[in-house]
Amino acid sequence: MKYRQTRLQVGELATGQALNVPIFDFDGRDKTAPNVFIQANVHGAEVQGNAVIFQLMSLLETYDILGDIRILPLANPLGINQKSGEFTLGRFDPITGMNWNREYQAPVIELAQWFERHQALDDAALIKAYRQELVNICLQGLDNEWGLSTGKRLALNLQALAHEADIVLDLHTGPKSCKHLYCPEYDIKAARYFSIPYTLVIPNEFGGAMDESIFCPWWQLSDFLKCQGRNLDVPISAFTLELGSQEHIDLAEALNDAKGILAYLSHRGVIKEKLTPQVMPRYACYLKHYKKYHAPLSGLVEYKAPLGKVLPEGQVLANILRLDLYGTEQVLTPLTLNQTCVPILHFASASVHQGTELYKVMTQVFELSFLI
Amino acid sequence: MKYRQTRLQVGELATGQALNVPIFDFDGRDKTAPNVFIQANVHGAEVQGNAVIFQLMSLLETYDILGDIRILPLANPLGINQKSGEFTLGRFDPITGMNWNREYQAPVIELAQWFERHQALDDAALIKAYRQELVNICLQGLDNEWGLSTGKRLALNLQALAHEADIVLDLHTGPKSCKHLYCPEYDIKAARYFSIPYTLVIPNEFGGAMDESIFCPWWQLSDFLKCQGRNLDVPISAFTLELGSQEHIDLAEALNDAKGILAYLSHRGVIKEKLTPQVMPRYACYLKHYKKYHAPLSGLVEYKAPLGKVLPEGQVLANILRLDLYGTEQVLTPLTLNQTCVPILHFASASVHQGTELYKVMTQVFELSFLI
Amino acid sequence: MKYRQTRLQVGELATGQALNVPIFDFDGRDKTAPNVFIQANVHGAEVQGNAVIFQLMSLLETYDILGDIRILPLANPLGINQKSGEFTLGRFDPITGMNWNREYQAPVIELAQWFERHQALDDAALIKAYRQELVNICLQGLDNEWGLSTGKRLALNLQALAHEADIVLDLHTGPKSCKHLYCPEYDIKAARYFSIPYTLVIPNEFGGAMDESIFCPWWQLSDFLKCQGRNLDVPISAFTLELGSQEHIDLAEALNDAKGILAYLSHRGVIKEKLTPQVMPRYACYLKHYKKYHAPLSGLVEYKAPLGKVLPEGQVLANILRLDLYGTEQVLTPLTLNQTCVPILHFASASVHQGTELYKVMTQVFELSFLI
Amino acid sequence: MKYRQTRLQVGELATGQALNVPIFDFDGRDKTAPNVFIQANVHGAEVQGNAVIFQLMSLLETYDILGDIRILPLANPLGINQKSGEFTLGRFDPITGMNWNREYQAPVIELAQWFERHQALDDAALIKAYRQELVNICLQGLDNEWGLSTGKRLALNLQALAHEADIVLDLHTGPKSCKHLYCPEYDIKAARYFSIPYTLVIPNEFGGAMDESIFCPWWQLSDFLKCQGRNLDVPISAFTLELGSQEHIDLAEALNDAKGILAYLSHRGVIKEKLTPQVMPRYACYLKHYKKYHAPLSGLVEYKAPLGKVLPEGQVLANILRLDLYGTEQVLTPLTLNQTCVPILHFASASVHQGTELYKVMTQVFELSFLI
Repeated sequence: MKYRQTRLQVGELATGQALNVPIFDFDGRDKTAPNVFIQANVHGAEVQGNAVIFQLMSLLETYDILGDIRILPLANPLGINQKSGEFTLGRFDPITGMNWNREYQAPVIELAQWFERHQALDDAALIKAYRQELVNICLQGLDNEWGLSTGKRLALNLQALAHEADIVLDLHTGPKSCKHLYCPEYDIKAARYFSIPYTLVIPNEFGGAMDESIFCPWWQLSDFLKCQGRNLDVPISAFTLELGSQEHIDLAEALNDAKGILAYLSHRGVIKEKLTPQVMPRYACYLKHYKKYHAPLSGLVEYKAPLGKVLPEGQVLANILRLDLYGTEQVLTPLTLNQTCVPILHFASASVHQGTELYKVMTQVFELSFLI
Repeated sequence: MKYRQTRLQVGELATGQALNVPIFDFDGRDKTAPNVFIQANVHGAEVQGNAVIFQLMSLLETYDILGDIRILPLANPLGINQKSGEFTLGRFDPITGMNWNREYQAPVIELAQWFERHQALDDAALIKAYRQELVNICLQGLDNEWGLSTGKRLALNLQALAHEADIVLDLHTGPKSCKHLYCPEYDIKAARYFSIPYTLVIPNEFGGAMDESIFCPWWQLSDFLKCQGRNLDVPISAFTLELGSQEHIDLAEALNDAKGILAYLSHRGVIKEKLTPQVMPRYACYLKHYKKYHAPLSGLVEYKAPLGKVLPEGQVLANILRLDLYGTEQVLTPLTLNQTCVPILHFASASVHQGTELYKVMTQVFELSFLI
Repeated sequence: MKYRQTRLQVGELATGQALNVPIFDFDGRDKTAPNVFIQANVHGAEVQGNAVIFQLMSLLETYDILGDIRILPLANPLGINQKSGEFTLGRFDPITGMNWNREYQAPVIELAQWFERHQALDDAALIKAYRQELVNICLQGLDNEWGLSTGKRLALNLQALAHEADIVLDLHTGPKSCKHLYCPEYDIKAARYFSIPYTLVIPNEFGGAMDESIFCPWWQLSDFLKCQGRNLDVPISAFTLELGSQEHIDLAEALNDAKGILAYLSHRGVIKEKLTPQVMPRYACYLKHYKKYHAPLSGLVEYKAPLGKVLPEGQVLANILRLDLYGTEQVLTPLTLNQTCVPILHFASASVHQGTELYKVMTQVFELSFLI
Repeated sequence: MKYRQTRLQVGELATGQALNVPIFDFDGRDKTAPNVFIQANVHGAEVQGNAVIFQLMSLLETYDILGDIRILPLANPLGINQKSGEFTLGRFDPITGMNWNREYQAPVIELAQWFERHQALDDAALIKAYRQELVNICLQGLDNEWGLSTGKRLALNLQALAHEADIVLDLHTGPKSCKHLYCPEYDIKAARYFSIPYTLVIPNEFGGAMDESIFCPWWQLSDFLKCQGRNLDVPISAFTLELGSQEHIDLAEALNDAKGILAYLSHRGVIKEKLTPQVMPRYACYLKHYKKYHAPLSGLVEYKAPLGKVLPEGQVLANILRLDLYGTEQVLTPLTLNQTCVPILHFASASVHQGTELYKVMTQVFELSFLI
């Protein structure tokens, strides 16, 4: 057994039960190697990341581990246990509607002031000081005289741990989805290692998600220093991996994704063994070209466009069936787009009110090699 | 256009909006042919029956219709429109927990008394009088000084219409399910016509479902008359068709099932054309051998056993993954049964509390031809 | 400290967390005194029973306890922790719709056979043997090769403990409710002791609730023995106390109800001190005269009739406001009954679909002294 | 009848049913008088505003109306009809978790450019042009090739109408709440007219709510023009009125609030009659001093602090009851604040997870007359 198991208390249920997240720590033997933080299942229905962690930990037991690796499966016990009908109501707090992956915080650091106090430090010391600042802000956030919300408490507990790592992987899934990766533009080369065909190239903008909460403050620091004439590459990597569909466990597929993660960790020197990434075409689009398509009318939905395949302009994305309009042309409405796209995910249910987010599609897709 | 469209008001929403079910009436030209009542989507997430109705109505426009056919798609507007998270919370009333398909009523008819008053009638007149009695009981139930519940109002409105038909088809689906048919034992030959490989042979017991509410009173009458020395075959047919999985629309598969329904209607003389049922193996088991398997422990579920295939004794039904127990043997528990079965449906979510109904399986399965 | 605290595991959440109910055992010093089982909060939103238990346990520490008293607050951890919006979705399992208080079981005992084997026993031994039979049936139910549902597991765990007691109190509340007691007809004198003004007199019929599951088998035994010419009073008492409204904690009111329970326990000799029941008028009606009034139309509801007060025939129970019908007479509909009643509880929300159970009212109410 | 009734379609349910909001238009006889837009019940459980509208419309029929008054009760039919358990899940879209009152949009107008094109206009024409711009942006938002979400469609439909008015009143309630008013700082004198004792003074910051979406763009214009040396008072008034508790209808209280609204409309010259505002003390605090107090621990809650009354420092806000900790000091934890405050609202349920927003309290409260 190469790991230690502890737990993180992130809340407390009405009956008094503590909400704990299991933590598995694999200690690396080389303290100069990057260390890693991996979490899964912050959205309660997105369980496949746990299966990937299961396979990853099983594999790690056979590798020569250089950097510390900390792994938190089942990271949102309240969200995972909250059923609503047969399904897990896991995207948001059932009480407030707040999305569990939008509660991480962007630290407010006055960079000019901060740098004035720390500019004498060399890069390594500067990084260490900044990291400590980020962790402290999370810890201070947890200690608030007015208390803090259930979701904020969870987020800050996880974020405080994640800030301590050099590499942060947040494992999610879509509703019905093909695999895709959220990758910050400065770190786009990383996308060559995971077993994931589609990558969203994301800018330096904070929207509340874990990955953004980790890299944005470093990216801002890097940009700020550049203006000051000092060059510091962003020393931190943070990605969201979307590993297929929610409400689904597939151990064979999980093994595949665990190997993709290991290929990246190998590349980064976290494990000593050299692993080759899977050979596969990899595509990307910029986040601004990633489009939500909302149901223009209500009805029953036959999802037609396969996920992860090019859908030429004008071809059918989905059919909307409206039995109340039988006998008219509106009984069956094929939905099409007037541009070529790659559908990445679609809604989970087969009946929709008007306005439901039906598909998310990549437009202006390019091969990743063009960017790299 | 060979049909008339009207609607049935079954309730009223808090804002005052009427809850209406569309009704499509195809008039038959031979008043001696049996007449038919078909409804779909009483459980809100079970939408595929509407697609079958769409295909069926399209086909009916090309046939020579002898018996009246009344079709009610979208039969439970409240249940269909009630979302809970991304999914449709359609099995039960969100306020009371009451299953929408358990509110039909078993009429309380004192058969000895009733028959004493009607014994002079010939079979046709007896059937007519009994049918009128059944309809009247529903209508009286709708007119109650203390009011009636939302679900009871829906059920009695539908049941009153269904009692007027000779053939009643209630279109449902399972959660994740292969196709199967609920067929009363006296009518088992009917199972040869639908495009459905598995049949549950059900006894004369009322549990609240539509099909039972229709055939039970007639079956009781038939049994009673037998004791009185008068032979009257049950003159009514009522089936529940489980047409695959909920939250799923597939128009091609729906066409297949529409043809199966037409093959049965052809056999019964509702349409003039002679249609041959699909050639396929058909299997059955008695309802008492249809078993619910509840999760013996909680965790994440990898569903392994394919639906509609024989699963030999001891083979894996599902794996339960428990990341909190990583490092112990309990991290992955394969679930097996100690008898051969055919898994028919499984739970819709990939994470379960202890006790969740994980699979429903047929045991003691036999080829339908043995029974027929 | 006069009690021991243990816990009862009743299930397991998807993340692996055990669902435990706390048990507090106060040991009595006289083993001939009756022993007591008290539980609260089986319906998740009905929290006031816990406050009553808090006050009761505090008081018990100062009394001379003769009979054993076992107390289970927070008896349904899954139901208590399950929020839906701001409120606790506690009446039914969110997955199945099954009412948590309808899963107790009526043991199937073939009384003639059972008595043949045990008729030589004297009353005390007969009672002991029958009690053991009831407990065993629960334990066997918990050990089922097909598993058992979440709700059934909870119910059988609680019922197995409750069968061991001579006095069973199940603490509930209504939605918005005045206090009332469910009391079996054979035990009606007990109603004089609790601090509860309204009593429902219930017959020997099993509907799935805790109290019925405890007293019905004994009542049946008593009735059976009477037919055999042997007289055995029902040796068991079981009541459901409805202690006001759900989603409400009031410690002062809880103290009042705790004293009422103590007055009953004093009367039964469970504590040595003599406590006088509160002097108050007490009324009753038979369960068959307890009526559910369903909303005859939908709309917004102004609840007008005070709970626990006589409402003369024709006076306004509630107003239904329908803004969509402003300008017509239907904008405001006063609802009335054509008989005098006592409204006991009403629905919790101020907007209703047609058919919502709006009020429950006692009709044909009489002073309890007439019955006793 | 002095009004016209029409309706606004704001969406479509899965079954095809249109979601309509009723509109009542009272035409004023003086086209120079300000016109008014009033809506209620955008949060589905906050029904009391409809009762206020009922009383207001009844009163308006007897007044001499100068300005046009447009009234939309039941403004969110999807939210109002969505039950979850017994209660209305009305604060957010059950599918997305999105708060219905955070989807209004802040128009992106490049003020410098816009003003350059319009600076020749006099104030009245400038106002007219800017208003048209605001309406157009909403209409353009409704016409989006990628569709728009259910909540955005509702919000933009309502906002487009509201921008046409000079006075916008959005009627809400809290969960359990005393009456309070959200009032922009520039318009603070208006707070003297409504029958509302507590006012939140809000700054020029957009958070997604209706009132902000209406006044922010005008406030920005006013500020911008000031920098340009042109003085234009904000010509628009927009308020959110919080009229007590959700899930509650009280027609008598509604009459009181309707009169308060009329007093304000009288002051503004919308009706000819001179109405005197209710004489009552009125208090206020700045939004930044309005504090959310989150449950520091989980448990059952006895709410102690009365709403709308000063709670001195150190006095009990609520008690947290934890039966699992009976026998320790933690069984009952009184929650206190270390500053004086006025509790304005508290959470609706009596059991809470850690982090639940338990109370919202005003701190640094002052008499409104100090500000005015």
